[in-house]
Amino acid sequence: MPPIPQTVAALGEFALIDRLAAALAEVGAAAAPDLLGIGDDAAIWTPTPGTRAVITTDSLIAGIHFRLDWTSWRDLGHKALAVNLSDVAAMGARPRLATVSLALTGAEPVAGLLDLYRGMGALAAAHGVVVAGGDIVASPERLGLHVTVVGESWPDADGTLLTRDHARPGDLLAISGPLGRSAAGLEGLLRSVVRGQQSVAGAVPGDAASVSTHSLRTTDYGLRTTDFLAAHHRPTPQIAYGRAIVAAGGRVAMDLSDGLFGDLAKICARSGVGAIVEETALPVPDTVRAAFPAEWLRLATRGGEDYELLFTVDRVTLDRLRVLCAARALPAPAIIGVITAPTAAGPPIRLRRADGREEAVGGGAFDHFGEGIIRQGELPRD
Amino acid sequence: MPPIPQTVAALGEFALIDRLAAALAEVGAAAAPDLLGIGDDAAIWTPTPGTRAVITTDSLIAGIHFRLDWTSWRDLGHKALAVNLSDVAAMGARPRLATVSLALTGAEPVAGLLDLYRGMGALAAAHGVVVAGGDIVASPERLGLHVTVVGESWPDADGTLLTRDHARPGDLLAISGPLGRSAAGLEGLLRSVVRGQQSVAGAVPGDAASVSTHSLRTTDYGLRTTDFLAAHHRPTPQIAYGRAIVAAGGRVAMDLSDGLFGDLAKICARSGVGAIVEETALPVPDTVRAAFPAEWLRLATRGGEDYELLFTVDRVTLDRLRVLCAARALPAPAIIGVITAPTAAGPPIRLRRADGREEAVGGGAFDHFGEGIIRQGELPRD
Repeated sequence: MPPIPQTVAALGEFALIDRLAAALAEVGAAAAPDLLGIGDDAAIWTPTPGTRAVITTDSLIAGIHFRLDWTSWRDLGHKALAVNLSDVAAMGARPRLATVSLALTGAEPVAGLLDLYRGMGALAAAHGVVVAGGDIVASPERLGLHVTVVGESWPDADGTLLTRDHARPGDLLAISGPLGRSAAGLEGLLRSVVRGQQSVAGAVPGDAASVSTHSLRTTDYGLRTTDFLAAHHRPTPQIAYGRAIVAAGGRVAMDLSDGLFGDLAKICARSGVGAIVEETALPVPDTVRAAFPAEWLRLATRGGEDYELLFTVDRVTLDRLRVLCAARALPAPAIIGVITAPTAAGPPIRLRRADGREEAVGGGAFDHFGEGIIRQGELPRD
Repeated sequence: MPPIPQTVAALGEFALIDRLAAALAEVGAAAAPDLLGIGDDAAIWTPTPGTRAVITTDSLIAGIHFRLDWTSWRDLGHKALAVNLSDVAAMGARPRLATVSLALTGAEPVAGLLDLYRGMGALAAAHGVVVAGGDIVASPERLGLHVTVVGESWPDADGTLLTRDHARPGDLLAISGPLGRSAAGLEGLLRSVVRGQQSVAGAVPGDAASVSTHSLRTTDYGLRTTDFLAAHHRPTPQIAYGRAIVAAGGRVAMDLSDGLFGDLAKICARSGVGAIVEETALPVPDTVRAAFPAEWLRLATRGGEDYELLFTVDRVTLDRLRVLCAARALPAPAIIGVITAPTAAGPPIRLRRADGREEAVGGGAFDHFGEGIIRQGELPRD
């Protein structure tokens, strides 16, 4: 193969499409027989009879959702698909195919975009998802990744999907896994920038003075800093967990992208209920508590991007789910509180602190345009 | 209702989502009973049993695909959805739902975005399409609209869809409607800018010195200039035509977005065939020929954005299609040439001129990054 030109502008768009398709095939993300992928007006697939279908879309913009000096291209590809698969997981559905709209400046290194597609393709292949085409457009100032995923209910689920509008007072509030690791990773990155006498706003991707992932010492914030970074850069969509919740008889779930309190507020609003969260029950790893003794609660409840599933279950469903989780080598659900009747006024969520006091907590998620500075890692994902 | 704040930044993201949903409802684009729209992790719909599904995505970027000083917000919303519906039409499919990812600077007027959604919603409602949520992200420099549409084969089509890979030598090459009107509209806009002593590159949206649609006199380029502009700003997705092609037994279609020669080259490449196009058979309106006597052929074959369907049929299928078109009040297909065996070397398309000479024509579509200047209206839409 001839050497790869350095930038997209040098290679040209149509040659790029061929190379990206080849990068997908390289990692085993080739088209399935019933799917028509890249190269026609649209991708085709055959819904499994008796299933219901879901569609979700999520965009990542350079400088807003990611920094190219903090992430590898491969991790970026993983994450761009993972955040969409996470939405499908939160519906209790099975992802089938993805389309990608790349908004490119033209200055992107071709080798970087190939790695992006390898990262996306490897995750797609692991879940039987086909990356089935999309669109490439010019975006003169900054790179944008716009991914859409289509999925369907699991064939054995009788069309059941998990929504946000069926939580009932008395239901238990549960989470599929640990909170705060992604936010801890981001916090570590942000502090390493400050330590380097450089503000986040001033850091320029590719600038030698800007901090790289590697400059964050693994001992800086406890022993598991690399775990924090992995959680931040390579989130795991909880697809098997969503399936287990459906199989156990659950009806309500969402994925944690905006932080526990911001996301729980959405379930409360859609279901017309309140919730009490127990501080002592929050599944925050010791490593996060040790690394951020003063901030772990904020990181765990407001940090966002955990991509664990937040769901509600009655006790019978919970018992069934525990059995299923054990049988399927999934973590046991962590019960963090209960759903209550709607509060008469004020925020719908109360936090019961370790000392027994109850506090009302604002549930407002981060507003993209309501504050002057947009902070990475606190973006709404509806 | 309180007065609408002027910009997105002033209103805030979550209030904006509510307003956009209300704008959709206003024009009759409310959610259908089997569809869960805005407000959950994903939109839900139930595929019609026995159908195959399609998915397509197309992005419009300010300054690249549209200019806010040339289009109204409402037309922009229409077009952003129409170009996606056109891809579904080209598959011979029925559109079901759309997701929209808005990439906003924050300076957009809220009233403009509401009009955008009204334009999108009116077209959606006309075709039974639900605008089922999406994503809003910050894009500091320029507005981007990223639309994805899911459709399915028509219930009476036995799962048949129209692709690009089944054209056979001897098939007739046909088009659903006139060529060149959209390009004529764009050409008129471009010349009106030059006439105004202002280069396209230098025109600034909102700048009082830049040209508006209204400054293009309706008599400038023939009697039908307003038709040209309508074709450019409000393209019609040929959904009923795609359905008729399927019903007649057709198997090959695509929509004309990059211009006849660029798009036909894609059918030739995917099907491994060549094609001869007859200049005298091209359905170019007299108004276009009269307004652009020296350039009508270029506008009709290279101009792009006609969003008519280009398709191939054998004679039996053509006869059936003619009957169907007459019965369904659709224009009769225009036969513009034939599919041939693949050419041994060189471009796959030949143009037979009015004087009988045959010319080989390059089929290369516009490369987004291969040229220094990106021209509106010549963008690839795969």
